[in-house]
Amino acid sequence: MLIPKVLTKLRAQVPLVHNITNVVVTNFTANGLLAIGASPVMAYAKEEVADMATVANALVLNIGTLTAENVESMIIAGKAANLANTPVILDPVGAGATRYRTESVHRIMKEVEITLLRGNAAEVANVAGIKAKMRGVDSVSEHNNSEIALEAAKLLQVPVVITGEKDIVAVNEKLSIVHNGHQMLTKVTGTGCLLSSILGAFIAVEEDVFLASTAGLVTYGVAAERAFEKTKEEGPGSFQIELLNQLMKIKEEDIKKWMKVESIRG
Amino acid sequence: MLIPKVLTKLRAQVPLVHNITNVVVTNFTANGLLAIGASPVMAYAKEEVADMATVANALVLNIGTLTAENVESMIIAGKAANLANTPVILDPVGAGATRYRTESVHRIMKEVEITLLRGNAAEVANVAGIKAKMRGVDSVSEHNNSEIALEAAKLLQVPVVITGEKDIVAVNEKLSIVHNGHQMLTKVTGTGCLLSSILGAFIAVEEDVFLASTAGLVTYGVAAERAFEKTKEEGPGSFQIELLNQLMKIKEEDIKKWMKVESIRG
Amino acid sequence: MLIPKVLTKLRAQVPLVHNITNVVVTNFTANGLLAIGASPVMAYAKEEVADMATVANALVLNIGTLTAENVESMIIAGKAANLANTPVILDPVGAGATRYRTESVHRIMKEVEITLLRGNAAEVANVAGIKAKMRGVDSVSEHNNSEIALEAAKLLQVPVVITGEKDIVAVNEKLSIVHNGHQMLTKVTGTGCLLSSILGAFIAVEEDVFLASTAGLVTYGVAAERAFEKTKEEGPGSFQIELLNQLMKIKEEDIKKWMKVESIRG
Repeated sequence: MLIPKVLTKLRAQVPLVHNITNVVVTNFTANGLLAIGASPVMAYAKEEVADMATVANALVLNIGTLTAENVESMIIAGKAANLANTPVILDPVGAGATRYRTESVHRIMKEVEITLLRGNAAEVANVAGIKAKMRGVDSVSEHNNSEIALEAAKLLQVPVVITGEKDIVAVNEKLSIVHNGHQMLTKVTGTGCLLSSILGAFIAVEEDVFLASTAGLVTYGVAAERAFEKTKEEGPGSFQIELLNQLMKIKEEDIKKWMKVESIRG
Repeated sequence: MLIPKVLTKLRAQVPLVHNITNVVVTNFTANGLLAIGASPVMAYAKEEVADMATVANALVLNIGTLTAENVESMIIAGKAANLANTPVILDPVGAGATRYRTESVHRIMKEVEITLLRGNAAEVANVAGIKAKMRGVDSVSEHNNSEIALEAAKLLQVPVVITGEKDIVAVNEKLSIVHNGHQMLTKVTGTGCLLSSILGAFIAVEEDVFLASTAGLVTYGVAAERAFEKTKEEGPGSFQIELLNQLMKIKEEDIKKWMKVESIRG
Repeated sequence: MLIPKVLTKLRAQVPLVHNITNVVVTNFTANGLLAIGASPVMAYAKEEVADMATVANALVLNIGTLTAENVESMIIAGKAANLANTPVILDPVGAGATRYRTESVHRIMKEVEITLLRGNAAEVANVAGIKAKMRGVDSVSEHNNSEIALEAAKLLQVPVVITGEKDIVAVNEKLSIVHNGHQMLTKVTGTGCLLSSILGAFIAVEEDVFLASTAGLVTYGVAAERAFEKTKEEGPGSFQIELLNQLMKIKEEDIKKWMKVESIRG
């Protein structure tokens, strides 16, 4: 039972996670990282991102409100992270929604070696150029999500996490499917962005990206389930706050008790 | 009884609301839009705002922490929105507080056709150049707010919403006065900014701007009253969270039960 | 008993606090200032910061996510504040973490007269160039914090607040040590940044910086203790919200009852 232990390792090591993220989710991301037991830092200026990425234990790039300056900073930070062996997580928020987003992701991926790509099915498909196989974003079935993840991982030669009703981890030809989580996550902004940063914290302490990503998804999903359980009479405001509470409260035993993972080796 | 039905229409259509807003309120705005049933997107880069505004169902421009780049992006987005018949809501936060804000609003309004201008009495008066009739911001009486709204709508040839102790909608010579809402809204940052974005969602689904704006104000005001009722022993932190809960919970029946609107046709 | 009265003065005067702060804490800072009884404004554009800083009652500069543009705006705003006798609070977030941060702080302090420098021990030591006396950030003992504060105040010729397990105020050779506050503050992002802005509000209404800073620390610390008391079974999400509630609820009597201050005159 390796999955539940990664959280304990994370809390012992308190990884420093450097985020270059969007302006919508900064506060929630920092608080979520603190709650799970990591140490967040946000730094954007091209004059300092290389220094920060070098000392950090993970770098998270999120294009949710990208600008030309931010993309430049992401590339500088990403190259420094590559040199320092700092893992780099890329969250291609809204890839496909505008040409600029898709192109910026491609530019970043050309210049920076990515440790994990994390998005929803449409975003990942757009990045990998397998849009043709989708019949509109909404018509992507869960079965297809696994296919998209595996194919994107193969085409891009990068580990992939696709989140949705079920969450998929695809690394080389290995696949895990995580059934934890709750639909209320879609009613709170930034829950996907926070997840990407938390996956950064897990990968910072566990170099097996397949295990680290699966463990991160399970931990986050179980915390979300507990948070919904406590706030189901209330609503998304209370859920957001309770998710932070549960990210601090969750323990190895909770993960063992509630985890729902299928692992399929290719 | 048309007013309560606009919310139901909004939830059926899930309008995409593109916000170019200030850095203080992004998270709260996105969460409020999700809670009411809309789909928020934030995009700022001049390279992508035209694409986003074209596919969006409403565009909300908010100058709360404006910069030269943001103003440029607002104008590009606004022009694209005009071409695509996407309604444009302008929130002139702090107009009159600095010359730069007032001038930027004038520049935006010169280049972009605005569907609704939403601000407090001082901001709207400053934009319309009717400052002379005010004896300082605090001395503006509620009676005056109606006059300011009507006169600003006439001078600027644009529908106007002024919020305050009572909320005023002025479209051409029609006027409605909404008595819902709660003073605790003034103790939480961004409640006015969120309202502007929510009015964008209402206008996205109901092209009668007078009806849509009145319905949006009533819905938001009733949600705020319910939120205060539940958190009056606690304080502004709890009120902010409960407002998000109530924006999701509110239904047609609640609006029918609690709405307090005077409509005056000129 | 002068300390508890400063809060009452603050609420009577409702000081306007102009913040040029980082993108992580804007919402929390604005809500915290509203809760305590101040009026927050965020303005960043170099075209308007001088106007805003001139009318404000305090200016707070926070380098948490600094960029070249922000530093330029901070210097423009700071110079205008100096001309208008608006007090200027500087929060050197992460000074020492990257060379760019340390250099930017030095540039700001060369151009702008600072009324109060507020940071943790490592940040203040780095700004003052007394890093050599520290054995790594974590090894700084509380005893050393008082020494660092006094020495930094002397070297930089500026009043200094260092926060940590105990909070230190050093003005000229006067020292006060505040034992209020709670460790949960370290689990919520931006609690230090909000404190800097609240100290700005206290200094805006009380020109004795030693008294104002001590009163601000005590008030904030007591509110944090009450917030923890109410949410200790829950976690950091609930604590953050309750801190806002308690900042509004706290009264002179609470401060008298719970304050724990040592004052040591040099």
